[in-house]
Amino acid sequence: MKVAILGQGYVGSIFSIGLERIKNGEIEPYGVPLSNELPIKIEDIEIVASYDVDKSKIGKTVYEVCKRYYDKVPESLKDIVVEKGIHLRSLRNLPIEAEGLEDNLSLSEAVDKLIESWKEKGVEVIVNVCTTESFVPFNDKEELIKAIEEDKKERVTATQVYAYAACKYAKEVGGAAFINAIPTLIANDKAFVELAKESNLVIFGDDGATGATPLTADVITHLCQRNRHIKYIVQFNIGGNTDFLALTDEERNKSKEYTKSSIVKDILGYEPPHYIKPTGYLEPIGDRKFISMDIEYISFNGAIDELIINGRINDSPALAGLLVDLVRLGKMAIERKEFGTVYEVNAFYMKNPGPIEKKNIPRIIAYEKLRMWAGLKPRWL
Amino acid sequence: MKVAILGQGYVGSIFSIGLERIKNGEIEPYGVPLSNELPIKIEDIEIVASYDVDKSKIGKTVYEVCKRYYDKVPESLKDIVVEKGIHLRSLRNLPIEAEGLEDNLSLSEAVDKLIESWKEKGVEVIVNVCTTESFVPFNDKEELIKAIEEDKKERVTATQVYAYAACKYAKEVGGAAFINAIPTLIANDKAFVELAKESNLVIFGDDGATGATPLTADVITHLCQRNRHIKYIVQFNIGGNTDFLALTDEERNKSKEYTKSSIVKDILGYEPPHYIKPTGYLEPIGDRKFISMDIEYISFNGAIDELIINGRINDSPALAGLLVDLVRLGKMAIERKEFGTVYEVNAFYMKNPGPIEKKNIPRIIAYEKLRMWAGLKPRWL
Amino acid sequence: MKVAILGQGYVGSIFSIGLERIKNGEIEPYGVPLSNELPIKIEDIEIVASYDVDKSKIGKTVYEVCKRYYDKVPESLKDIVVEKGIHLRSLRNLPIEAEGLEDNLSLSEAVDKLIESWKEKGVEVIVNVCTTESFVPFNDKEELIKAIEEDKKERVTATQVYAYAACKYAKEVGGAAFINAIPTLIANDKAFVELAKESNLVIFGDDGATGATPLTADVITHLCQRNRHIKYIVQFNIGGNTDFLALTDEERNKSKEYTKSSIVKDILGYEPPHYIKPTGYLEPIGDRKFISMDIEYISFNGAIDELIINGRINDSPALAGLLVDLVRLGKMAIERKEFGTVYEVNAFYMKNPGPIEKKNIPRIIAYEKLRMWAGLKPRWL
Amino acid sequence: MKVAILGQGYVGSIFSIGLERIKNGEIEPYGVPLSNELPIKIEDIEIVASYDVDKSKIGKTVYEVCKRYYDKVPESLKDIVVEKGIHLRSLRNLPIEAEGLEDNLSLSEAVDKLIESWKEKGVEVIVNVCTTESFVPFNDKEELIKAIEEDKKERVTATQVYAYAACKYAKEVGGAAFINAIPTLIANDKAFVELAKESNLVIFGDDGATGATPLTADVITHLCQRNRHIKYIVQFNIGGNTDFLALTDEERNKSKEYTKSSIVKDILGYEPPHYIKPTGYLEPIGDRKFISMDIEYISFNGAIDELIINGRINDSPALAGLLVDLVRLGKMAIERKEFGTVYEVNAFYMKNPGPIEKKNIPRIIAYEKLRMWAGLKPRWL
Ligand SMILES: NC(=O)c1ccc[n+]([C@@H]2O[C@H](COP(=O)([O-])OP(=O)(O)OC[C@H]3O[C@@H](n4cnc5c(N)ncnc54)[C@H](O)[C@@H]3O)[C@@H](O)[C@H]2O)c1
Ligand SMILES: NC(=O)c1ccc[n+]([C@@H]2O[C@H](COP(=O)([O-])OP(=O)(O)OC[C@H]3O[C@@H](n4cnc5c(N)ncnc54)[C@H](O)[C@@H]3O)[C@@H](O)[C@H]2O)c1
Ligand SMILES: NC(=O)c1ccc[n+]([C@@H]2O[C@H](COP(=O)([O-])OP(=O)(O)OC[C@H]3O[C@@H](n4cnc5c(N)ncnc54)[C@H](O)[C@@H]3O)[C@@H](O)[C@H]2O)c1
Ligand SMILES: NC(=O)c1ccc[n+]([C@@H]2O[C@H](COP(=O)([O-])OP(=O)(O)OC[C@H]3O[C@@H](n4cnc5c(N)ncnc54)[C@H](O)[C@@H]3O)[C@@H](O)[C@H]2O)c1
Ligand SMILES: [Mg+2]
Ligand SMILES: [Mg+2]
Ligand SMILES: [Mg+2]
Ligand SMILES: [Mg+2]
Repeated sequence: MKVAILGQGYVGSIFSIGLERIKNGEIEPYGVPLSNELPIKIEDIEIVASYDVDKSKIGKTVYEVCKRYYDKVPESLKDIVVEKGIHLRSLRNLPIEAEGLEDNLSLSEAVDKLIESWKEKGVEVIVNVCTTESFVPFNDKEELIKAIEEDKKERVTATQVYAYAACKYAKEVGGAAFINAIPTLIANDKAFVELAKESNLVIFGDDGATGATPLTADVITHLCQRNRHIKYIVQFNIGGNTDFLALTDEERNKSKEYTKSSIVKDILGYEPPHYIKPTGYLEPIGDRKFISMDIEYISFNGAIDELIINGRINDSPALAGLLVDLVRLGKMAIERKEFGTVYEVNAFYMKNPGPIEKKNIPRIIAYEKLRMWAGLKPRWL
Repeated sequence: MKVAILGQGYVGSIFSIGLERIKNGEIEPYGVPLSNELPIKIEDIEIVASYDVDKSKIGKTVYEVCKRYYDKVPESLKDIVVEKGIHLRSLRNLPIEAEGLEDNLSLSEAVDKLIESWKEKGVEVIVNVCTTESFVPFNDKEELIKAIEEDKKERVTATQVYAYAACKYAKEVGGAAFINAIPTLIANDKAFVELAKESNLVIFGDDGATGATPLTADVITHLCQRNRHIKYIVQFNIGGNTDFLALTDEERNKSKEYTKSSIVKDILGYEPPHYIKPTGYLEPIGDRKFISMDIEYISFNGAIDELIINGRINDSPALAGLLVDLVRLGKMAIERKEFGTVYEVNAFYMKNPGPIEKKNIPRIIAYEKLRMWAGLKPRWL
Repeated sequence: MKVAILGQGYVGSIFSIGLERIKNGEIEPYGVPLSNELPIKIEDIEIVASYDVDKSKIGKTVYEVCKRYYDKVPESLKDIVVEKGIHLRSLRNLPIEAEGLEDNLSLSEAVDKLIESWKEKGVEVIVNVCTTESFVPFNDKEELIKAIEEDKKERVTATQVYAYAACKYAKEVGGAAFINAIPTLIANDKAFVELAKESNLVIFGDDGATGATPLTADVITHLCQRNRHIKYIVQFNIGGNTDFLALTDEERNKSKEYTKSSIVKDILGYEPPHYIKPTGYLEPIGDRKFISMDIEYISFNGAIDELIINGRINDSPALAGLLVDLVRLGKMAIERKEFGTVYEVNAFYMKNPGPIEKKNIPRIIAYEKLRMWAGLKPRWL
Repeated sequence: MKVAILGQGYVGSIFSIGLERIKNGEIEPYGVPLSNELPIKIEDIEIVASYDVDKSKIGKTVYEVCKRYYDKVPESLKDIVVEKGIHLRSLRNLPIEAEGLEDNLSLSEAVDKLIESWKEKGVEVIVNVCTTESFVPFNDKEELIKAIEEDKKERVTATQVYAYAACKYAKEVGGAAFINAIPTLIANDKAFVELAKESNLVIFGDDGATGATPLTADVITHLCQRNRHIKYIVQFNIGGNTDFLALTDEERNKSKEYTKSSIVKDILGYEPPHYIKPTGYLEPIGDRKFISMDIEYISFNGAIDELIINGRINDSPALAGLLVDLVRLGKMAIERKEFGTVYEVNAFYMKNPGPIEKKNIPRIIAYEKLRMWAGLKPRWL
């Protein structure tokens, strides 16, 4: 099965590297939830295309780009060359020189150019791991189509255009999947889900569930099941990769904060006072972010308990490992013709599981439901 | 419904106090997992008897004993007087003067004396929260009966005699429940489960699941579901209540260590290197124990992550809150005639859920199964 | 010795309460560094005046105001009534209705009104614990005098006017002390230090050294002395008192961030990458703030070590305890005629010790120097 | 200057490796407190001899042994061969095959054999980093001499014999130094200090101050200087190197526990309740031990604060870095003829600074005194 990557950054590169190393038998598939249980094997995944808008990456091989992030890069990545994607302000305010297809083309033309490239390479699953965007959702399909057709470059973000292009592409080739691992609402935007249904596109999204957020979900489920009353939750995150740098931008940060906070309410049923956000950027921390949580709750007879959780978590591998499942599940959904979006998949893998009307549930339970959707025996149910 | 307490210590007292305060509308039922969802209400619970072997407690009212642990003790506890229980080395090596019914009676006589007292008070559910014991399980019903009948005081522990008495009592009155909240194997001892089945006794056990252990269960489930490979688990516990003091005794400690460690293997399927034990006693820490956990695991592409969890957790309220459910579930099981032991209940509330052949499962899932057993809608399934 | 409080908030109130409780023999003088070692005893301190600009506090007794912060307030605080101070935007953007002497008076008139009140009450030491301000230092004495005389209300902050008034007052009565426990530069502003010298005023400042900052100072000194190379320092702070609320205001926050970060460089000699700021406000955390620090450093042979420090620290008592020393040291400095500012005192008690040209030193050493200045034997030197 | 190592284990090997790498300009001298400030340069240190009793190490080059602990071992270590030392139960109960000079020789003969070897190589400073021992101090010089002369192998430990041999050697060659970095009391044993004085031997000891203990010293000094009253201190340590394995032996553990706990009392003047010990061994933690501390204290007005400190600290590099200073300071002391022991050096570098009548002081202050002793300007005094 053939995969295209949008955004050859840290996540995109660790995904590429780890995948090849597993295929080479160099490492165990740790961090890949369903590893070798799915009918489609990890060995079947093939990266065939990569797109970026960072001038210093376009035209380079994926191998060369990966070398910036990791030492032991498999040779097989020398065959894929990073192509120019759609930019639309994605890297605005970041210390990176950018260029995009839309610099010289209308949005419609840029979309067609992408589709052409995907057809040529036989792409089946498109993985979106671009820089976090500041965006406005559409909700209305007609409005979305109009924005693209009328070339309203200020109204749309790169991810929205990519998802639109994926719809058009799926319609033409008879089926494809778009994995939206970033906060921009796609699986939670009715405009896209509707268009996808009509177009034979599978969408998974939004925002890959890694790090402190899904752990918090399970920890508060644990408290909630014992009817312990949460007084407050504090969650700090600080990291040194470009994603944290991008999040110092207030507008982008809001996209993340929203996703992270909604989980709490979804699970508890009430919204305890909380302070949950990606808090800062500090370069030498690198990709191994530092998280710190403080939770105070009321136990039986009014007793006050406190949990303090600290962690050092490698940010990019966490998402990259999930992607190894998601591309395969995407292919399975295409085969089953479950177009639109699939809540059972999103509920486990995404911070903000689409569709919009569906809520977060405890991850530990979402896992069992996912297994059943994937045709596997639940582990403990 | 009428309850007897075996061991009017910290847990027994906070259970008594918190229960009365909830009944008085003074506090919310936080820490009681199924609070007001069960058909039997918290208001229906009535403590009618209490037994201890600490000389300084016998003959005192439960109110007076509770005052040692907490300030605001409800007046209603003035009506119950602590009676003499069976001792059998329970307090050996502890700085407490002890006496027991068996000081002047044979085991059989002591058992009959207890049964008489329970009958008189109409006891339905017996809660065992005595000091942690060093014990040898029976597994063979005949051997157990022989040990009691032949008055082999060195072979049996207090809990084993109490559970035996509960069987005999249940048989005579047509039904009763015995909640074993301490590590001594009762629900995991075939001798007791078999005898209970024949005697109309419901047994729940063993060892109430509070503190770091069930939290660890859910945290490692979280990691396991993402196929993150645990390199090691460290878990320290230190507290200042008499239970931690009792655990400085190497023999008693082993009972706890076993229970705590088995969870890890049950859930992961493999046994990662671990150091998990109640580690120390330090008086000024009091009942609000300090826990510290360190978990290192391998994520995708060989990345090493680390979680450090610290907590200050009120030990006794945690178990006392569970007891408020357990006594009601015990009564429900009697009514349903589910004699022997009930895995669905044990799996959520107990560190070492009986029967012996059943394993630990993630708590978050055990919760949903418990709800279904109790006739409640699952929350997320 | 007679003390006036500027700002009857959390710190001002805990100072008042704790002081009276120590005087009553109710509690030990914990948190007071030099407790009973100074020639002036804690019993000799008398609070005689209090000023605030919160409408709901003006006209109330200190006892009534203190009741908002603490339960057991000594009766003796019923005798002091909170008077109206100078406002000048101190509470801007906060959900508090404010009024100030300058609402109807020129700055000069307001200053004279204050001086009159201080004379009447025989005030010797003035303690400034108002809300954190956004400010511009003067450095030039003439400019400062002109700003007040020409009634430039937009140029000065309340603290600057208070300090100016203290100078004028000290000159008239022959000696006084002004303890600036907040970040506004006073002891670090040449304009004020010069004016103080000419006016018989002792200034201690700036910004009381409590919480994570002085602890960080000692921890990094520890590392520095072993030549361990700090890779980065992260320090988060979150609290639920009005001071944290005030710091959500970006302008005020900058005053604090500067103070907190400068310590690192002063001690290490180099400036390691760091992220140190008061990070957030969350009401239910109350005055017992949560701090979280992460420090990574290089040890021998390139080994990477990591320290993670979490704390729950009562914010206001920490500063209030220092004030019990500072007012007495202020009086001692008056008696010794050490007008201007006293580095030896500031270096231990202040985050940003004046005068401006002096730097932070490790607190553990500053303590010994302070003792010597105070005429006490050093403890370990 | 020429150094001999007793115990080519983790510390001995990291010391050898790091030293050579610094000399080669490969790495910075991080972790070496006085790095390039001393008159004797790091480049002047030369390892000339090494002794061990592990059969699998004797006869191997230091290079070969170092390879077991670290990847990048400098070639220069190929020239030194590990020789057989004195065993005397050092490795008893450990899974290591051992042999010692005393297997075939009397103690006196073994001592002479060692001295001969040292003479041949021109050894000036002897560093003792053998396995932690269970021991009985002598205090009486005559008794010590008798024990050796009468070949009482059960009475003495390897370290005691090594220190005795060092005395005899120093007397013969006119000066030498013995650095005792392990808990066995040598600098705190009057018998040895007296004998050293008469024999031109410099002793530094006992037990290198690394890890949680000296950090605790500085943290509690910080609290103590603010008169905060410590309610209790908990300190857990767990590691996976052979030293932690050796400490699972109850007898050896006691040596460490004593050293670690005494610091608290020395500094505070009172002994707060504490639980401080090396707690456990878990192989996969390796040399980067996990420490966890919990300190509760009373602040002003009775407020209860809490500090929780977690750390991952590379055990062996921490001590190895100190040794780079200690061997040079040893040589300086020889030159100054300061025979016996030197408290100023011990107070900074040792957990249990000799001589016996001297106590621990805050490390931050000990550092300044050390500098003065070494002829360097204090940094902040
Ligand atoms: N654990 C995680 O790392 C995690 C979890 C959830 C979501 N995410 C999301 O994944 C995304 C990628 O994270 P990262 O750490 O790899 O960031 P990164 O900054 O390392 O990589 C982003 C890459 O996308 C490229 N890019 C930006 N805009 C583009 C566009 N319009 N078209 C094509 N390429 C574009 C950038 O040049 C860069 O190479 C972020 O949006 C982040 O929010 C990451
Ligand atoms: N979170 C928790 O506190 C928790 C969790 C799981 C299990 N437990 C178990 O609950 C039990 C009670 O804990 P605790 O903190 O109340 O201890 P505790 O020491 O405060 O109380 C035990 C009480 O039992 C009494 N006792 C001892 N032997 C007895 C006997 N043979 N008959 C009657 N009374 C007897 C003692 O005198 C004491 O009053 C312990 O076994 C503990 O292992 C507690
Ligand atoms: N540990 C600490 O709490 C700590 C440490 C260092 C510095 N500080 C500083 O101490 C100050 C007080 O902190 P807090 O926690 O008591 O805050 P707070 O908000 O509880 O109290 C401030 C009080 O000052 C009053 N006030 C504001 N402007 C005033 C003015 N112009 N004149 C008179 N009164 C005025 C407010 O109405 C309020 O009553 C802050 O500036 C803070 O930065 C506190
Ligand atoms: N941070 C630290 O690592 C630290 C701090 C303070 C003290 N120490 C002490 O340093 C010592 C060494 O620690 P390590 O981690 O290197 O331990 P290790 O077990 O790795 O090394 C000890 C070495 O000494 C050898 N040995 C044992 N007995 C001997 C004898 N009688 N003669 C010669 N060699 C002998 C062993 O075979 C082994 O090679 C321990 O006593 C420890 O308590 C270490
Ligand atoms: Mg949704
Ligand atoms: Mg079982
Ligand atoms: Mg200064
Ligand atoms: Mg000593």
